[in-house]
Amino acid sequence: MSKLWGGRFQKQTNELVEEFTASIQFDQEFAEEDIEGSIAHVTMLQENGIITEEEMNQIKNGLLLILDRIQNGTFEYIVADEDIHMNIERALIEEIGPVGGKLHTGRSRNDQIATDMHLYLLRKTKGFIHLIEEVQKVILKQSEENVETILPGYTHLQRAQPVSFGHHLMAYFWMLERDKSRFQDSLKRISMSPLGAGALAGTTFSIDRSRTAELLHFDEVYPNSMDAVSDRDFILEFLSIASTLMVHISRLSEEMVIWSSQEFQYIELDDSFCTGSSIMPQKKNPDVPELLRAKTGRVYGNLFSLLTVLKGLPLAYNKDMQEDKEGMIDTVKTLDGTLRILAPMIESMVVKHENMKSSVQHDYSNATDIADYLVNQGATFREAHEIIGKIVLYGIEQNKYLLDLTIAEYQRFSPLFKEDIYDVLQPISVMNARNSYGGTSTSQVQKQIEYAKTFL
Amino acid sequence: MSKLWGGRFQKQTNELVEEFTASIQFDQEFAEEDIEGSIAHVTMLQENGIITEEEMNQIKNGLLLILDRIQNGTFEYIVADEDIHMNIERALIEEIGPVGGKLHTGRSRNDQIATDMHLYLLRKTKGFIHLIEEVQKVILKQSEENVETILPGYTHLQRAQPVSFGHHLMAYFWMLERDKSRFQDSLKRISMSPLGAGALAGTTFSIDRSRTAELLHFDEVYPNSMDAVSDRDFILEFLSIASTLMVHISRLSEEMVIWSSQEFQYIELDDSFCTGSSIMPQKKNPDVPELLRAKTGRVYGNLFSLLTVLKGLPLAYNKDMQEDKEGMIDTVKTLDGTLRILAPMIESMVVKHENMKSSVQHDYSNATDIADYLVNQGATFREAHEIIGKIVLYGIEQNKYLLDLTIAEYQRFSPLFKEDIYDVLQPISVMNARNSYGGTSTSQVQKQIEYAKTFL
Amino acid sequence: MSKLWGGRFQKQTNELVEEFTASIQFDQEFAEEDIEGSIAHVTMLQENGIITEEEMNQIKNGLLLILDRIQNGTFEYIVADEDIHMNIERALIEEIGPVGGKLHTGRSRNDQIATDMHLYLLRKTKGFIHLIEEVQKVILKQSEENVETILPGYTHLQRAQPVSFGHHLMAYFWMLERDKSRFQDSLKRISMSPLGAGALAGTTFSIDRSRTAELLHFDEVYPNSMDAVSDRDFILEFLSIASTLMVHISRLSEEMVIWSSQEFQYIELDDSFCTGSSIMPQKKNPDVPELLRAKTGRVYGNLFSLLTVLKGLPLAYNKDMQEDKEGMIDTVKTLDGTLRILAPMIESMVVKHENMKSSVQHDYSNATDIADYLVNQGATFREAHEIIGKIVLYGIEQNKYLLDLTIAEYQRFSPLFKEDIYDVLQPISVMNARNSYGGTSTSQVQKQIEYAKTFL
Amino acid sequence: MSKLWGGRFQKQTNELVEEFTASIQFDQEFAEEDIEGSIAHVTMLQENGIITEEEMNQIKNGLLLILDRIQNGTFEYIVADEDIHMNIERALIEEIGPVGGKLHTGRSRNDQIATDMHLYLLRKTKGFIHLIEEVQKVILKQSEENVETILPGYTHLQRAQPVSFGHHLMAYFWMLERDKSRFQDSLKRISMSPLGAGALAGTTFSIDRSRTAELLHFDEVYPNSMDAVSDRDFILEFLSIASTLMVHISRLSEEMVIWSSQEFQYIELDDSFCTGSSIMPQKKNPDVPELLRAKTGRVYGNLFSLLTVLKGLPLAYNKDMQEDKEGMIDTVKTLDGTLRILAPMIESMVVKHENMKSSVQHDYSNATDIADYLVNQGATFREAHEIIGKIVLYGIEQNKYLLDLTIAEYQRFSPLFKEDIYDVLQPISVMNARNSYGGTSTSQVQKQIEYAKTFL
Repeated sequence: MSKLWGGRFQKQTNELVEEFTASIQFDQEFAEEDIEGSIAHVTMLQENGIITEEEMNQIKNGLLLILDRIQNGTFEYIVADEDIHMNIERALIEEIGPVGGKLHTGRSRNDQIATDMHLYLLRKTKGFIHLIEEVQKVILKQSEENVETILPGYTHLQRAQPVSFGHHLMAYFWMLERDKSRFQDSLKRISMSPLGAGALAGTTFSIDRSRTAELLHFDEVYPNSMDAVSDRDFILEFLSIASTLMVHISRLSEEMVIWSSQEFQYIELDDSFCTGSSIMPQKKNPDVPELLRAKTGRVYGNLFSLLTVLKGLPLAYNKDMQEDKEGMIDTVKTLDGTLRILAPMIESMVVKHENMKSSVQHDYSNATDIADYLVNQGATFREAHEIIGKIVLYGIEQNKYLLDLTIAEYQRFSPLFKEDIYDVLQPISVMNARNSYGGTSTSQVQKQIEYAKTFL
Repeated sequence: MSKLWGGRFQKQTNELVEEFTASIQFDQEFAEEDIEGSIAHVTMLQENGIITEEEMNQIKNGLLLILDRIQNGTFEYIVADEDIHMNIERALIEEIGPVGGKLHTGRSRNDQIATDMHLYLLRKTKGFIHLIEEVQKVILKQSEENVETILPGYTHLQRAQPVSFGHHLMAYFWMLERDKSRFQDSLKRISMSPLGAGALAGTTFSIDRSRTAELLHFDEVYPNSMDAVSDRDFILEFLSIASTLMVHISRLSEEMVIWSSQEFQYIELDDSFCTGSSIMPQKKNPDVPELLRAKTGRVYGNLFSLLTVLKGLPLAYNKDMQEDKEGMIDTVKTLDGTLRILAPMIESMVVKHENMKSSVQHDYSNATDIADYLVNQGATFREAHEIIGKIVLYGIEQNKYLLDLTIAEYQRFSPLFKEDIYDVLQPISVMNARNSYGGTSTSQVQKQIEYAKTFL
Repeated sequence: MSKLWGGRFQKQTNELVEEFTASIQFDQEFAEEDIEGSIAHVTMLQENGIITEEEMNQIKNGLLLILDRIQNGTFEYIVADEDIHMNIERALIEEIGPVGGKLHTGRSRNDQIATDMHLYLLRKTKGFIHLIEEVQKVILKQSEENVETILPGYTHLQRAQPVSFGHHLMAYFWMLERDKSRFQDSLKRISMSPLGAGALAGTTFSIDRSRTAELLHFDEVYPNSMDAVSDRDFILEFLSIASTLMVHISRLSEEMVIWSSQEFQYIELDDSFCTGSSIMPQKKNPDVPELLRAKTGRVYGNLFSLLTVLKGLPLAYNKDMQEDKEGMIDTVKTLDGTLRILAPMIESMVVKHENMKSSVQHDYSNATDIADYLVNQGATFREAHEIIGKIVLYGIEQNKYLLDLTIAEYQRFSPLFKEDIYDVLQPISVMNARNSYGGTSTSQVQKQIEYAKTFL
Repeated sequence: MSKLWGGRFQKQTNELVEEFTASIQFDQEFAEEDIEGSIAHVTMLQENGIITEEEMNQIKNGLLLILDRIQNGTFEYIVADEDIHMNIERALIEEIGPVGGKLHTGRSRNDQIATDMHLYLLRKTKGFIHLIEEVQKVILKQSEENVETILPGYTHLQRAQPVSFGHHLMAYFWMLERDKSRFQDSLKRISMSPLGAGALAGTTFSIDRSRTAELLHFDEVYPNSMDAVSDRDFILEFLSIASTLMVHISRLSEEMVIWSSQEFQYIELDDSFCTGSSIMPQKKNPDVPELLRAKTGRVYGNLFSLLTVLKGLPLAYNKDMQEDKEGMIDTVKTLDGTLRILAPMIESMVVKHENMKSSVQHDYSNATDIADYLVNQGATFREAHEIIGKIVLYGIEQNKYLLDLTIAEYQRFSPLFKEDIYDVLQPISVMNARNSYGGTSTSQVQKQIEYAKTFL
């Protein structure tokens, strides 16, 4: 099949090459954006006297016909036409005749594909901001219901200090809030119009780039044509933000897997989010959090791919940049699935309050409070720490927790201990004593939740 | 040596372990931030009646003494003391006695290290914004001097259309502008105080986290203590932005290497930015841009290291997070060196105007303009493209450039050609014809430069 | 639809989850291997009296029927059946009745999928070894034809010393030879049978793992069942080798792009391996080498994805490991396309001998030979290097190459110069003087080519 | 300071550049290899009549003097001398006079640094093979002591089937065995001599590359000089193998962290491998396995750095390749520390047999065996799986484990159940029933251990 750019060539493209270099297999994802961009382009061309009104109308109608076929699945993509632009342009010319050839006046595929991807990612990013909020709402709901649910807080996967489960969950609210904030910040760098930058140098036609930007709802126009067609920062930024979002989701997933183990039993995932084993009939596996955790790798990989592709490319467009698409699309789909599945999974998980509560009664996670107690009696923190370290060791040897030790035993380690030490050591007291801003006391967690609501 | 946390332990730390788990070898980088944070902390402790004024003064004076020793290089770091916090605390206690043990009241190393790194990265990020501007200024200067310098613009490393060298360079201005804008946006997520979050759950002491935040010039306070000590997003964001910055620098470096080749000879780097060969006496190698290009790998690697480390970590602090430091510090140093060296290198490079100009006279990069010419005579763009493709092929066969063909030859391909085609084909006309916004015409590049100045 | 593992569950799988956790969309790639493995399994089950001959035959026939449907594209994959194993097992039971349920006796999906992937990668790796050899043959052919073609050898993209183009190309032969050697070494770690490892612990049935290994042509059997089902090293190793292979291909591609530039013009790619521009009619872009260079990013990304997924996974199988497949398959397809396209592209490229030759006559790449000349006259290498550095500088100032300087001019720098210096400086002499083993002299390159042939 | 290559230059190197481009800060790591290589080189030069015996002796003696100073720490490295080669060469000339300048005859820094790194990595790789064996021995020892220690085997971190702890540990033996095997395979690609390849093209001196290879104990000589100086595959291969090794270590570390939690309590790490908290006196944190897990990120990062650096580099040497060193050295040090610490940590960990045993008595991990039981009574596996799924669900509702159900209860689900079902369900029976090759039965694990010993 002859190419639209084929005049200068004496041989047909090698068939393997055709398949290998074509992008239509994946850039059809941008079909709607491509037509949207073309309509804005011809509108502007007509307004600036570059094409006639009749030509504009013919082209627009042709494009809308094609759009219709694309949306109802009857448009046939052809690999020999390489990409979404050429597929649509050829169909347009077939539909409306040679006048269709005027569509490409004053633009190039280089600015056209950049425009498509900006439009696509702008729409998707706004969607992700919304989807993240949906997850935040569910976290908020579970947190509100669990402000007073006590469980051990962990560092190094060792029990550290008792915390509110609502507090623990809210940590994820704030992580997601930062992800949202980063997506939001990125919008200004996505919402820029490359259209009219031409192949690399602008165009000889007296086009109006602000007008197409306006028609496409872009906030700004790239001030430099070479930058406009070579810039893939906005995709890198998207992939970077997505990677950090996946860090957060992988951490939550890891916790859900651990909490679902028989040893912890802090939560039970709904049956609908688990699968079984082909061989072990008793198994109920937390497949979804495991898979979410693993999807992290995929997103990282996509980021690293594009970083690799772009490294050291001279200006302006190079064919290498075609490899910017699949990783972006794959990441969009991964995030979409991930966020959509995360909300109902968190919402439907059963929190096993009794198991959590039982845990904090069988550990030494109230030890810091004895240290603080001694400090309040006048010891320095370091001295107190040393004393209570010895008490814990004694407790382990005697097989007693801190609430089980007698006052006499305490006083053997320091004369500063009084009977009121037992009040201090109740897990609930320990939790509520952490009443500094952002701390785990019920009243602080309540305040935190109210504050969080202002972000939705 | 006995550990400050050693009360509960019955054995000394294994010596290999001591060396392997210590961070003092690299976290001494934060010595000043650590002391700054401690001074803010004790100030607040005193203001809230947790320690006395005398104690505060003793501690402050002790810390300032230590700071002094650190700054003049006489402070001795001890691996057995693990990290910067313990090194300073031990020195403090040695200096001022047991009262030094009060410093750690109401905080933990977990919030302390987070505070140090926030302070450090806040300072560094502001520094990078400044350093980027220095590079932008140099680019602006070279661009201004080269608005009218014509050279071939390339796509696919093939000559595409003649452009202004000033225009070409300005593309990098805008890339750096986006990098700056991302660093700027990141500031709000760095400028948050984790201090007072304690180990993970807050503290039982009635501290005032807003006050320490204020003393340390943080804009906000983390609203959740578990998030405060587990968050490393700000480092990931820094490394992501740094990676994108390095993409830009690697692209410019690649171009400088190519332009310095004997085949291109578009620029000559100053001798002071090149090195020679141990064996080939004629060599003048563009070592600096090559090395800048390569440093990209290092920064990417640091990003991927941290992404790997954080993936799937349960809350709150885990020892894994100690591995967040070296990659960050290495990236800080790499960016610092890179940006400092980039500015004078660009400034001192010699632009070889004649070679650039000569190039555009010996290629077909004016071909698009014939197509546009035919469109202006009424052809559709696609028809015009096909015709000029054939003309180029004819030219190559006849060993003639487009300006060398006779009007008769032109008319053999299309009757639309007239004598004025030769005006259109002059490289300078070609360049200046691209007068759309952001295009390469001298007047557009001038405007662009004026606009760019408003960003500095 | 009810699951084969559903006895223990009270709720249907969430629909989003079904789609999200299913692997049938991509693991259908292993359909043939899956059936091959099943046939080996039932053969062994029968031989060991675990099923009857009649049962075996029924199952085999059912499987062959299904294989037939898969191969002619009439088999319908169902997402609700999750993966390739369950899709085939359900179809089998539908086909031959409940006896089909005996197929899964003594195995699990965990060892089954591992078996499929081992079989798949074993076949593919052998294929790549063959494809690499095809590329090596083409390199060898081009090298043989260009033993005497002289061009500048480069370091730092600066002309260094004249080399034979055949020698230059042969460097890639040896890179590919190492890739081949690594693929070959990896075979022994792929050719291991996990079949019979069960879910993780082996099986209670008296199966014979050596027998299935033998039937499937595996060289060894995993000696530990937990390792057998958790091991994904063989995929990591494949992705690592593929990444290094892509390093090599990206280097060659970069050179082909540079050599195709108007400035170098050392080669011309065949039209069938290039594409044009939608806007610039003169363009002939080296799309294929650019795209090959970019594909490197994709392969690196796949490697990094899997490294991320596997990091820190506890034994034995985790759902995370499902993410091992798409990156592997994508890499297989990328390598396949890359290697198949590389051979004809190299074969069909036109080497522009005259341009190469002309280059070596217009540079200082013969400078080292003056140094060596002086050393042979008794100077130390360092002294000689210093002297010739000054001569080059003089030449640049006088706008003369080294062959253009008079003997008087030479002797001004050192009395050791005699008339025979001009013989030494001829590019062809310079090239042939490098006659040490592995050097660029024609006779060494001839020998090298003969040696290389022994590797095919 | 004037450069040894400075003849052609008119300006001093910029000071920032000097610091930025120098490698002496890290390539001093190869000081001994550099001298070793030089001694081999001059020996060969003399044997081939290129230098006199006296010159050789002077140079050798000078080099040995310098080696001595390096080894006792009195050698002063100078940044202005750029790298280890120039530092040593300058010192040599200072020591023995101009004759020292003869050392560099017939070689270049390009082949010299490649030689150094080959020598270095060859030595290190052999060391790692040994260190891995040390870890394998410790694993073997712990495994032998725990062949009969029963604990739940996990998939998806859910209890799956009871296994021998010895069996579980042995999975790591085999992972390490593959790592060792990969290191071993890599030796043949490291043990190649680039020496004599010169800058890129060989040398005009009649050197004998086989002789230097022999003197340096290399197995082969690179057959192509351009490949010899550009090849960094051997480092990529090292980093890839190291990354896979770290996957294994991170998996074991993750398990050690989980097993050390209060909820699992399967092992207790020795005090000497743990550290405490600055604030929570009860904490005993598994710092070492956490840190080992995190070190994975560092090694991955180093791999990706170098992959990035090398991508798309034209032949032959480019300054970019200087960035190959730090990541390699850092990985060498990381592996070294990791492996040295791993062995004693595994050796000293306390296995809590009672806790493990108790676990298998409180779960449904014997469920598969009921299915197998029914299969042995004539059910198909799929029917059996369905029945036992229902029994497990009934058990959970009734709060009974499988050994607690009455025979009447069993028979309600299937008439195939008989009294002998209770024998089948004992955890120890369940474990020992998995007696297929590589399975977890004590006799299979014993055999496995015997087989494993043949690999040491």
